[in-house]
Amino acid sequence: MAIEWVGLDADDTLWHSEDGFNEVIATFLDVVSPYVDAGRDDVERRLLAIEHANLEVFGYGVKGFTLSMIEAAVEVSAGRIPSSELARVVELGRELMRKPVVLLDGVAEVVAELAGSHRLLLITKGDLLHQETKVIQSGLEAHFHAIEIVSEKHPEAYRRVLHRHDISPEVFVMVGNSVKSDILPVLAIGAAAVHIPYEFLWGAEHAEHDGSVPELTSITALPAWLSGR
Amino acid sequence: MAIEWVGLDADDTLWHSEDGFNEVIATFLDVVSPYVDAGRDDVERRLLAIEHANLEVFGYGVKGFTLSMIEAAVEVSAGRIPSSELARVVELGRELMRKPVVLLDGVAEVVAELAGSHRLLLITKGDLLHQETKVIQSGLEAHFHAIEIVSEKHPEAYRRVLHRHDISPEVFVMVGNSVKSDILPVLAIGAAAVHIPYEFLWGAEHAEHDGSVPELTSITALPAWLSGR
Repeated sequence: MAIEWVGLDADDTLWHSEDGFNEVIATFLDVVSPYVDAGRDDVERRLLAIEHANLEVFGYGVKGFTLSMIEAAVEVSAGRIPSSELARVVELGRELMRKPVVLLDGVAEVVAELAGSHRLLLITKGDLLHQETKVIQSGLEAHFHAIEIVSEKHPEAYRRVLHRHDISPEVFVMVGNSVKSDILPVLAIGAAAVHIPYEFLWGAEHAEHDGSVPELTSITALPAWLSGR
Repeated sequence: MAIEWVGLDADDTLWHSEDGFNEVIATFLDVVSPYVDAGRDDVERRLLAIEHANLEVFGYGVKGFTLSMIEAAVEVSAGRIPSSELARVVELGRELMRKPVVLLDGVAEVVAELAGSHRLLLITKGDLLHQETKVIQSGLEAHFHAIEIVSEKHPEAYRRVLHRHDISPEVFVMVGNSVKSDILPVLAIGAAAVHIPYEFLWGAEHAEHDGSVPELTSITALPAWLSGR
Protein backbone atom coordinates (compact mmCIF):
# COMPACT_ATOMS: atom_id res chain seq x y z
CA MET A 1 0.00 0.00 0.00
CA ALA A 2 1.12 3.54 -0.65
CA ILE A 3 2.44 5.53 2.27
CA GLU A 4 0.03 8.32 3.22
CA TRP A 5 1.41 9.36 6.60
CA VAL A 6 5.02 10.16 7.51
CA GLY A 7 6.05 10.29 11.18
CA LEU A 8 9.15 12.34 11.85
CA ASP A 9 11.27 12.22 14.98
CA ALA A 10 12.52 15.64 16.10
CA ASP A 11 15.79 15.68 18.13
CA ASP A 12 18.70 14.73 15.86
CA THR A 13 16.33 14.04 12.96
CA LEU A 14 14.91 17.53 12.27
CA TRP A 15 17.24 19.58 14.47
CA HIS A 16 20.51 19.22 16.35
CA SER A 17 20.24 18.04 19.95
CA GLU A 18 22.86 15.51 21.01
CA ASP A 19 25.72 17.86 20.10
CA GLY A 20 24.38 20.31 22.69
CA PHE A 21 24.38 17.60 25.36
CA ASN A 22 27.95 16.69 24.37
CA GLU A 23 29.06 20.31 24.78
CA VAL A 24 27.43 20.49 28.22
CA ILE A 25 29.09 17.23 29.27
CA ALA A 26 32.50 18.62 28.22
CA THR A 27 31.91 21.76 30.30
CA PHE A 28 30.64 19.66 33.20
CA LEU A 29 33.88 17.63 33.15
CA ASP A 30 35.87 20.88 33.23
CA VAL A 31 33.83 22.10 36.21
CA VAL A 32 34.25 18.97 38.32
CA SER A 33 37.80 17.94 37.35
CA PRO A 34 39.61 20.09 39.97
CA TYR A 35 37.73 18.21 42.73
CA VAL A 36 38.05 14.70 41.37
CA ASP A 37 40.85 12.10 41.36
CA ALA A 38 39.35 9.94 38.60
CA GLY A 39 40.02 10.65 34.92
CA ARG A 40 37.56 12.40 32.59
CA ASP A 41 36.46 9.14 30.98
CA ASP A 42 35.64 7.57 34.34
CA VAL A 43 33.69 10.64 35.44
CA GLU A 44 31.74 10.70 32.19
CA ARG A 45 30.95 6.99 32.49
CA ARG A 46 29.69 7.54 36.03
CA LEU A 47 27.53 10.48 34.91
CA LEU A 48 25.95 8.42 32.14
CA ALA A 49 25.30 5.53 34.55
CA ILE A 50 23.57 7.88 37.01
CA GLU A 51 21.56 9.46 34.17
CA HIS A 52 20.52 5.98 33.03
CA ALA A 53 19.43 4.92 36.50
CA ASN A 54 17.42 8.13 36.86
CA LEU A 55 15.48 7.76 33.59
CA GLU A 56 12.78 5.65 35.18
CA VAL A 57 11.88 8.35 37.70
CA PHE A 58 12.98 11.56 35.99
CA GLY A 59 12.23 10.60 32.38
CA TYR A 60 13.93 12.10 29.32
CA GLY A 61 15.04 15.65 28.87
CA VAL A 62 17.36 18.36 30.09
CA LYS A 63 15.97 18.79 33.60
CA GLY A 64 16.46 15.16 34.60
CA PHE A 65 19.90 15.23 33.00
CA THR A 66 20.81 18.33 35.02
CA LEU A 67 19.74 16.66 38.26
CA SER A 68 21.90 13.67 37.27
CA MET A 69 24.89 16.00 36.74
CA ILE A 70 24.39 17.38 40.26
CA GLU A 71 24.30 13.90 41.76
CA ALA A 72 27.32 12.79 39.73
CA ALA A 73 29.35 15.86 40.73
CA VAL A 74 28.76 15.28 44.43
CA GLU A 75 29.48 11.56 44.16
CA VAL A 76 32.66 11.65 42.06
CA SER A 77 34.11 14.47 44.15
CA ALA A 78 33.09 12.73 47.39
CA GLY A 79 31.40 15.98 48.36
CA ARG A 80 34.52 18.11 47.80
CA ILE A 81 33.00 20.19 45.00
CA PRO A 82 31.71 23.51 46.40
CA SER A 83 27.99 24.13 46.08
CA SER A 84 28.68 27.30 44.06
CA GLU A 85 29.98 25.03 41.27
CA LEU A 86 26.67 23.14 41.38
CA ALA A 87 24.80 26.39 40.78
CA ARG A 88 26.96 26.61 37.63
CA VAL A 89 25.79 23.12 36.67
CA VAL A 90 22.15 24.21 37.00
CA GLU A 91 23.03 27.15 34.78
CA LEU A 92 24.43 24.72 32.18
CA GLY A 93 21.04 23.00 32.14
CA ARG A 94 19.20 26.29 31.78
CA GLU A 95 21.45 27.30 28.86
CA LEU A 96 20.83 23.95 27.17
CA MET A 97 17.06 24.46 27.46
CA ARG A 98 17.38 27.94 25.99
CA LYS A 99 19.70 26.93 23.17
CA PRO A 100 18.20 28.05 19.85
CA VAL A 101 16.95 25.32 17.53
CA VAL A 102 19.26 24.65 14.58
CA LEU A 103 17.68 22.58 11.79
CA LEU A 104 19.72 19.87 10.10
CA ASP A 105 20.73 20.55 6.51
CA GLY A 106 17.85 20.33 4.08
CA VAL A 107 15.13 19.84 6.72
CA ALA A 108 13.20 23.06 6.02
CA GLU A 109 12.94 22.26 2.28
CA VAL A 110 12.21 18.55 2.69
CA VAL A 111 9.49 19.01 5.32
CA ALA A 112 7.79 21.67 3.19
CA GLU A 113 7.96 19.39 0.14
CA LEU A 114 6.66 16.32 1.99
CA ALA A 115 3.77 18.31 3.43
CA GLY A 116 2.53 18.72 -0.13
CA SER A 117 2.40 14.97 -0.79
CA HIS A 118 1.82 13.33 2.63
CA ARG A 119 0.28 14.02 5.98
CA LEU A 120 3.04 14.57 8.53
CA LEU A 121 3.19 13.79 12.25
CA LEU A 122 5.98 14.99 14.48
CA ILE A 123 6.52 12.30 17.11
CA THR A 124 9.02 13.10 19.83
CA LYS A 125 9.69 12.11 23.41
CA GLY A 126 10.94 14.10 26.34
CA ASP A 127 10.05 17.22 28.22
CA LEU A 128 6.67 18.64 27.19
CA LEU A 129 7.44 22.37 27.48
CA HIS A 130 10.93 22.08 26.00
CA GLN A 131 9.77 20.04 23.01
CA GLU A 132 6.84 22.40 22.35
CA THR A 133 9.18 25.37 22.54
CA LYS A 134 11.52 23.78 20.01
CA VAL A 135 8.66 22.92 17.63
CA ILE A 136 7.51 26.55 17.66
CA GLN A 137 11.07 27.86 17.22
CA SER A 138 11.70 25.47 14.34
CA GLY A 139 9.16 27.24 12.13
CA LEU A 140 7.99 23.82 10.91
CA GLU A 141 4.80 23.51 12.97
CA ALA A 142 2.40 24.50 10.19
CA HIS A 143 3.58 21.61 8.01
CA PHE A 144 2.48 19.01 10.57
CA HIS A 145 -0.98 17.55 10.90
CA ALA A 146 -0.24 17.03 14.62
CA ILE A 147 2.58 17.21 17.16
CA GLU A 148 2.72 14.16 19.41
CA ILE A 149 4.96 14.36 22.49
CA VAL A 150 5.17 11.06 24.36
CA SER A 151 6.99 10.03 27.53
CA GLU A 152 8.44 6.87 25.94
CA LYS A 153 8.53 5.53 22.39
CA HIS A 154 7.39 1.97 22.94
CA PRO A 155 5.08 0.10 20.52
CA GLU A 156 2.01 1.00 22.59
CA ALA A 157 2.82 4.72 22.29
CA TYR A 158 2.95 4.45 18.49
CA ARG A 159 -0.21 2.32 18.47
CA ARG A 160 -2.01 5.04 20.42
CA VAL A 161 -0.80 7.83 18.13
CA LEU A 162 -1.89 5.95 14.99
CA HIS A 163 -5.24 5.09 16.59
CA ARG A 164 -5.84 8.72 17.55
CA HIS A 165 -5.46 9.82 13.93
CA ASP A 166 -7.20 6.76 12.50
CA ILE A 167 -4.09 5.63 10.61
CA SER A 168 -3.61 2.05 9.47
CA PRO A 169 0.01 0.83 10.01
CA GLU A 170 0.30 -0.13 6.31
CA VAL A 171 0.12 3.51 5.22
CA PHE A 172 2.53 4.86 7.86
CA VAL A 173 6.29 5.23 7.86
CA MET A 174 8.37 6.53 10.77
CA VAL A 175 11.62 8.37 10.10
CA GLY A 176 14.24 8.91 12.77
CA ASN A 177 17.81 8.61 13.98
CA SER A 178 17.28 6.12 16.81
CA VAL A 179 16.90 2.42 16.02
CA LYS A 180 15.67 1.86 19.57
CA SER A 181 13.00 4.59 19.61
CA ASP A 182 12.10 5.29 15.98
CA ILE A 183 12.58 1.95 14.21
CA LEU A 184 12.07 -1.20 16.32
CA PRO A 185 8.81 -0.20 18.09
CA VAL A 186 7.35 0.93 14.74
CA LEU A 187 8.24 -2.34 13.03
CA ALA A 188 6.67 -4.09 16.02
CA ILE A 189 3.26 -2.60 15.23
CA GLY A 190 3.49 -3.54 11.53
CA ALA A 191 4.41 -0.14 10.11
CA ALA A 192 7.49 0.82 8.08
CA ALA A 193 10.51 2.79 9.28
CA VAL A 194 13.46 4.61 7.75
CA HIS A 195 16.68 5.11 9.67
CA ILE A 196 18.67 8.31 9.22
CA PRO A 197 21.64 8.14 11.61
CA TYR A 198 22.90 11.32 13.28
CA GLU A 199 26.54 12.13 13.93
CA PHE A 200 26.22 11.33 17.66
CA LEU A 201 24.02 8.75 19.37
CA TRP A 202 23.24 8.91 23.07
CA GLY A 203 24.23 5.65 24.79
CA ALA A 204 20.69 5.02 26.09
CA GLU A 205 19.38 4.96 22.51
CA HIS A 206 21.73 2.25 21.28
CA ALA A 207 20.06 -0.72 19.54
CA GLU A 208 20.52 -2.83 16.42
CA HIS A 209 18.08 -3.81 13.72
CA ASP A 210 18.33 -6.91 11.50
CA GLY A 211 19.70 -5.04 8.50
CA SER A 212 16.42 -4.95 6.59
CA VAL A 213 15.58 -1.35 7.53
CA PRO A 214 16.18 1.27 4.84
CA GLU A 215 18.93 3.66 5.87
CA LEU A 216 19.43 7.10 4.36
CA THR A 217 22.46 9.30 4.95
CA SER A 218 20.39 12.49 4.87
CA ILE A 219 16.75 13.54 5.09
CA THR A 220 17.21 15.14 1.66
CA ALA A 221 17.00 11.60 0.21
CA LEU A 222 13.60 10.96 1.81
CA PRO A 223 11.26 12.35 -0.92
CA ALA A 224 12.93 10.20 -3.57
CA TRP A 225 12.77 7.15 -1.29
CA LEU A 226 9.05 7.73 -0.70
CA SER A 227 8.23 8.17 -4.37
CA GLY A 228 10.34 5.18 -5.44
CA ARG A 229 8.72 2.88 -2.94
CA MET B 1 -27.61 23.11 26.83
CA ALA B 2 -26.99 20.02 28.90
CA ILE B 3 -23.44 19.26 29.94
CA GLU B 4 -22.13 16.19 28.11
CA TRP B 5 -18.43 16.43 28.86
CA VAL B 6 -16.73 16.98 32.23
CA GLY B 7 -13.08 18.02 32.36
CA LEU B 8 -11.34 17.22 35.62
CA ASP B 9 -8.08 18.70 36.84
CA ALA B 10 -5.82 16.18 38.58
CA ASP B 11 -3.36 17.59 41.17
CA ASP B 12 -5.31 18.81 44.23
CA THR B 13 -8.63 18.04 42.51
CA LEU B 14 -8.48 14.23 42.19
CA TRP B 15 -5.42 13.54 44.36
CA HIS B 16 -3.23 15.29 46.90
CA SER B 17 -0.23 17.15 45.51
CA GLU B 18 0.45 20.52 47.10
CA ASP B 19 0.75 18.97 50.57
CA GLY B 20 3.71 16.93 49.28
CA PHE B 21 5.41 20.08 48.00
CA ASN B 22 4.79 21.73 51.36
CA GLU B 23 6.43 18.83 53.20
CA VAL B 24 9.45 19.01 50.89
CA ILE B 25 9.74 22.76 51.43
CA ALA B 26 9.70 22.23 55.22
CA THR B 27 12.50 19.65 54.92
CA PHE B 28 14.42 21.91 52.53
CA LEU B 29 14.27 24.74 55.10
CA ASP B 30 15.64 22.33 57.75
CA VAL B 31 18.48 21.32 55.41
CA VAL B 32 19.59 24.85 54.55
CA SER B 33 18.95 26.62 57.87
CA PRO B 34 22.37 25.80 59.46
CA TYR B 35 24.09 27.65 56.61
CA VAL B 36 21.82 30.67 56.39
CA ASP B 37 21.50 33.89 58.39
CA ALA B 38 18.01 34.75 57.11
CA GLY B 39 14.86 33.43 58.79
CA ARG B 40 12.80 30.54 57.45
CA ASP B 41 10.14 32.84 56.00
CA ASP B 42 12.71 34.84 54.06
CA VAL B 43 14.34 31.69 52.70
CA GLU B 44 10.98 30.28 51.65
CA ARG B 45 10.04 33.55 49.95
CA ARG B 46 13.32 33.51 48.05
CA LEU B 47 12.80 29.87 47.00
CA LEU B 48 9.33 30.66 45.66
CA ALA B 49 10.63 33.71 43.80
CA ILE B 50 13.36 31.61 42.13
CA GLU B 51 10.82 28.88 41.30
CA HIS B 52 8.55 31.52 39.76
CA ALA B 53 11.34 33.01 37.67
CA ASN B 54 12.30 29.52 36.45
CA LEU B 55 8.79 28.51 35.32
CA GLU B 56 9.23 30.05 31.88
CA VAL B 57 12.26 27.88 31.09
CA PHE B 58 11.78 24.82 33.31
CA GLY B 59 7.97 24.61 33.23
CA TYR B 60 5.81 23.01 35.91
CA GLY B 61 6.62 19.94 37.91
CA VAL B 62 8.95 18.42 40.46
CA LYS B 63 12.17 18.45 38.41
CA GLY B 64 12.10 22.18 37.77
CA PHE B 65 11.16 22.76 41.40
CA THR B 66 14.14 20.66 42.55
CA LEU B 67 16.52 22.66 40.35
CA SER B 68 15.05 25.82 41.90
CA MET B 69 15.72 24.43 45.41
CA ILE B 70 19.38 23.86 44.43
CA GLU B 71 19.73 27.42 43.15
CA ALA B 72 17.99 28.85 46.21
CA ALA B 73 20.15 26.84 48.63
CA VAL B 74 23.38 28.10 47.04
CA GLU B 75 22.14 31.68 46.89
CA VAL B 76 20.69 32.05 50.40
CA SER B 77 23.74 30.36 51.95
CA ALA B 78 26.13 32.45 49.79
CA GLY B 79 27.72 29.17 48.75
CA ARG B 80 28.31 28.01 52.35
CA ILE B 81 26.05 24.96 52.09
CA PRO B 82 28.15 21.84 51.33
CA SER B 83 27.41 20.07 48.05
CA SER B 84 26.57 16.88 49.94
CA GLU B 85 23.49 18.69 51.28
CA LEU B 86 22.49 19.49 47.70
CA ALA B 87 22.58 15.79 46.85
CA ARG B 88 20.05 15.46 49.68
CA VAL B 89 17.91 18.11 47.99
CA VAL B 90 17.95 16.09 44.72
CA GLU B 91 16.88 13.11 46.80
CA LEU B 92 13.93 15.13 48.15
CA GLY B 93 12.85 15.72 44.55
CA ARG B 94 13.18 12.05 43.71
CA GLU B 95 11.09 11.08 46.74
CA LEU B 96 8.42 13.58 45.77
CA MET B 97 8.23 12.07 42.26
CA ARG B 98 7.91 8.60 43.76
CA LYS B 99 5.32 9.53 46.37
CA PRO B 100 2.30 7.27 46.02
CA VAL B 101 -0.89 8.87 44.74
CA VAL B 102 -3.50 9.47 47.44
CA LEU B 103 -6.98 10.25 46.14
CA LEU B 104 -9.03 12.97 47.79
CA ASP B 105 -12.06 11.79 49.76
CA GLY B 106 -14.90 10.55 47.58
CA VAL B 107 -13.00 10.84 44.28
CA ALA B 108 -13.01 7.13 43.38
CA GLU B 109 -16.80 6.90 43.84
CA VAL B 110 -17.65 10.21 42.17
CA VAL B 111 -15.49 9.60 39.10
CA ALA B 112 -16.98 6.12 38.64
CA GLU B 113 -20.48 7.57 38.98
CA LEU B 114 -19.87 10.46 36.57
CA ALA B 115 -18.37 8.09 33.98
CA GLY B 116 -21.83 6.52 33.76
CA SER B 117 -23.57 9.77 32.89
CA HIS B 118 -20.92 11.94 31.15
CA ARG B 119 -17.80 11.63 29.06
CA LEU B 120 -14.80 12.56 31.18
CA LEU B 121 -11.51 14.21 30.26
CA LEU B 122 -8.60 14.46 32.64
CA ILE B 123 -6.83 17.73 31.89
CA THR B 124 -3.62 18.37 33.78
CA LYS B 125 -0.44 20.34 33.33
CA GLY B 126 3.12 19.58 34.27
CA ASP B 127 5.67 16.86 33.75
CA LEU B 128 4.56 14.30 31.15
CA LEU B 129 6.05 11.16 32.71
CA HIS B 130 5.14 12.10 36.28
CA GLN B 131 1.54 12.93 35.40
CA GLU B 132 1.14 9.73 33.36
CA THR B 133 2.56 7.71 36.24
CA LYS B 134 0.09 9.28 38.67
CA VAL B 135 -2.86 8.66 36.33
CA ILE B 136 -1.95 4.97 36.11
CA GLN B 137 -1.40 4.71 39.88
CA SER B 138 -4.72 6.42 40.58
CA GLY B 139 -6.69 3.52 39.15
CA LEU B 140 -9.03 6.04 37.51
CA GLU B 141 -7.71 5.87 33.94
CA ALA B 142 -10.41 3.58 32.58
CA HIS B 143 -13.12 6.09 33.52
CA PHE B 144 -11.66 8.76 31.25
CA HIS B 145 -12.35 9.17 27.56
CA ALA B 146 -8.88 10.74 27.26
CA ILE B 147 -5.98 12.03 29.34
CA GLU B 148 -4.72 15.43 28.23
CA ILE B 149 -1.41 16.63 29.63
CA VAL B 150 -0.58 20.19 28.61
CA SER B 151 2.39 22.42 29.32
CA GLU B 152 0.22 25.41 30.29
CA LYS B 153 -3.52 25.83 30.90
CA HIS B 154 -4.22 28.92 28.83
CA PRO B 155 -7.42 29.39 26.79
CA GLU B 156 -5.70 28.14 23.62
CA ALA B 157 -4.77 24.86 25.34
CA TYR B 158 -8.42 24.25 26.30
CA ARG B 159 -9.57 25.28 22.82
CA ARG B 160 -7.22 22.70 21.31
CA VAL B 161 -8.37 19.94 23.67
CA LEU B 162 -12.05 20.60 22.94
CA HIS B 163 -11.35 20.79 19.20
CA ARG B 164 -9.46 17.47 19.27
CA HIS B 165 -12.49 15.72 20.76
CA ASP B 166 -15.01 17.69 18.72
CA ILE B 167 -16.62 19.22 21.83
CA SER B 168 -18.67 22.39 21.71
CA PRO B 169 -17.93 24.73 24.68
CA GLU B 170 -21.66 24.81 25.59
CA VAL B 171 -21.64 21.15 26.58
CA PHE B 172 -18.36 21.23 28.53
CA VAL B 173 -17.64 21.99 32.17
CA MET B 174 -14.17 22.10 33.74
CA VAL B 175 -13.76 21.21 37.41
CA GLY B 176 -10.65 22.10 39.38
CA ASN B 177 -9.02 23.74 42.36
CA SER B 178 -7.19 26.57 40.60
CA VAL B 179 -9.07 29.68 39.54
CA LYS B 180 -6.09 30.69 37.40
CA SER B 181 -5.68 27.37 35.54
CA ASP B 182 -9.03 25.60 35.72
CA ILE B 183 -11.61 28.41 35.78
CA LEU B 184 -10.62 31.66 34.06
CA PRO B 185 -9.19 30.19 30.81
CA VAL B 186 -12.25 27.92 30.51
CA LEU B 187 -14.69 30.81 30.96
CA ALA B 188 -12.63 32.68 28.35
CA ILE B 189 -13.50 30.09 25.69
CA GLY B 190 -17.20 30.15 26.54
CA ALA B 191 -17.41 26.94 28.56
CA ALA B 192 -18.53 26.49 32.17
CA ALA B 193 -16.34 25.85 35.21
CA VAL B 194 -16.78 24.67 38.78
CA HIS B 195 -14.29 25.62 41.48
CA ILE B 196 -13.46 23.14 44.23
CA PRO B 197 -10.77 24.74 46.42
CA TYR B 198 -8.06 22.56 47.97
CA GLU B 199 -6.64 23.06 51.44
CA PHE B 200 -3.40 24.58 50.06
CA LEU B 201 -2.91 26.73 46.96
CA TRP B 202 0.51 27.24 45.41
CA GLY B 203 1.34 30.95 45.15
CA ALA B 204 1.79 30.79 41.36
CA GLU B 205 -1.81 29.61 40.97
CA HIS B 206 -3.37 32.52 42.79
CA ALA B 207 -6.16 34.35 40.94
CA GLU B 208 -9.64 35.68 41.59
CA HIS B 209 -12.87 35.26 39.71
CA ASP B 210 -15.81 37.65 39.72
CA GLY B 211 -17.90 35.62 42.16
CA SER B 212 -20.19 34.10 39.55
CA VAL B 213 -18.39 30.76 39.39
CA PRO B 214 -20.05 27.87 41.22
CA GLU B 215 -17.94 26.74 44.15
CA LEU B 216 -18.26 23.34 45.81
CA THR B 217 -16.58 22.33 49.04
CA SER B 218 -16.05 18.75 47.89
CA ILE B 219 -16.12 16.76 44.67
CA THR B 220 -18.81 14.61 46.30
CA ALA B 221 -21.25 17.47 45.60
CA LEU B 222 -20.47 17.44 41.86
CA PRO B 223 -22.99 14.81 40.65
CA ALA B 224 -25.86 16.67 42.34
CA TRP B 225 -24.65 19.98 40.91
CA LEU B 226 -24.53 18.50 37.41
CA SER B 227 -27.98 16.97 37.60
CA GLY B 228 -29.51 20.11 39.15
CA ARG B 229 -28.09 22.35 36.46
